[in-house]
Amino acid sequence: MVYELYYWPTIQGRGEFVRLALEEASARYVDVARGDSAEDPMLAYLDDKRIARPPFAPPFLKAGKLIIAQTANILLFLGEQHRLAPATTAGRLWTHQLQLTIADLVAEVHDCHHPIASSLYYEDQKREAKRRAHHLIRERLPKYLGYFERVLERNPRGPKFLVESRLTYADLSAFQLVAGLLYAFPKAMARLGRRQPNLMRLHNRVAARPRIAAYLASQRRIAPNEDDIFRRYPELDE
Amino acid sequence: MVYELYYWPTIQGRGEFVRLALEEASARYVDVARGDSAEDPMLAYLDDKRIARPPFAPPFLKAGKLIIAQTANILLFLGEQHRLAPATTAGRLWTHQLQLTIADLVAEVHDCHHPIASSLYYEDQKREAKRRAHHLIRERLPKYLGYFERVLERNPRGPKFLVESRLTYADLSAFQLVAGLLYAFPKAMARLGRRQPNLMRLHNRVAARPRIAAYLASQRRIAPNEDDIFRRYPELDE
Repeated sequence: MVYELYYWPTIQGRGEFVRLALEEASARYVDVARGDSAEDPMLAYLDDKRIARPPFAPPFLKAGKLIIAQTANILLFLGEQHRLAPATTAGRLWTHQLQLTIADLVAEVHDCHHPIASSLYYEDQKREAKRRAHHLIRERLPKYLGYFERVLERNPRGPKFLVESRLTYADLSAFQLVAGLLYAFPKAMARLGRRQPNLMRLHNRVAARPRIAAYLASQRRIAPNEDDIFRRYPELDE
Repeated sequence: MVYELYYWPTIQGRGEFVRLALEEASARYVDVARGDSAEDPMLAYLDDKRIARPPFAPPFLKAGKLIIAQTANILLFLGEQHRLAPATTAGRLWTHQLQLTIADLVAEVHDCHHPIASSLYYEDQKREAKRRAHHLIRERLPKYLGYFERVLERNPRGPKFLVESRLTYADLSAFQLVAGLLYAFPKAMARLGRRQPNLMRLHNRVAARPRIAAYLASQRRIAPNEDDIFRRYPELDE
């Protein structure tokens, strides 16, 4: 079976968490909207009245007859299919819990450049963005990153992975989170990164995995840009 | 086994989605922070360095040796334990997908009165809140509520439940979502509710279920208030 991934073709966005899992699993997949027809098939899907279980928004993954949406939900599925999460109930829930916590921070990072509305331009909410970014950098990033550092420190199997002693989709997502933050907030992260050595090492370790390294060097990895979730607006960095 | 729920004792908040599932399942549980010792045991847990898999934030549920956090993750677990979700992979993922979409809207509703920072008072971000609430009511609520209406309409088993023909935790959460919106935005919901008849009927149907009705009439149901996620600030309603 060849998976079909439906996501915006010009950003990493939330789709990137799925792409990383597919790449690490060496799964066969088509990134549908990046084909010749661009976004059309994705938007057609979202509008198709015959779909009994419609996605609310991209990303969504077609796996045979299944259409699965919500990033963390797709990863829950891929984790089970491709051994990217433990098979035990406790391990499976813990991995998912970490993923959902990463998703919460991703949403906060998005809202820091769009604190009023996604439908408005950044320029129309720049003053509010500056205020929100200040709190993100001073309060939220230290809280979240400190948490993931603690999770690594307390892992009874050592600080190499977030969950037990094998890579899970939560590690891939933690890599993407740190990579995004390093891009968006280079100054703040230079300071914050020093306080989370295990998390930064996890980021580097994931980036060096053969399949991930090959993916990151390929044309399939979309470059960070200012239409994405993680945006480099120097005025928001501290 | 008696579950232990850890959540803030004076608000419905995200804990309420868990409480509703526990109540509908007739599960034995203690709402720990509402005991004599108030929040202390919850905060002690969050600070306890001996916990290998710490929660990032409440709510979290203790189930024997398991400590599970993240609302949607707790419901994933309870859904499996108490038949509050289908047992098939497709049904389980679809239920979770709907829950995660509800969670996204809950976060947007929270941020509409706290668009800059949770650590600031509402009064310190009132102007921004007004702007954000306008977009929430005009754009986001119609989009989300229209989506859930569509899910009910398209359910091949009829519009009585979100998933197949039995109650799931997603229905309980949809009830809580609508109840919260009716409290927070009575004017906007009087208008929007008319366009989502199946969703409003679902809300009423869940409220009338014997165990839920008994719960809602009990002291265990905390009254809505302005420390909660759903807040009635007339200046934000439209």
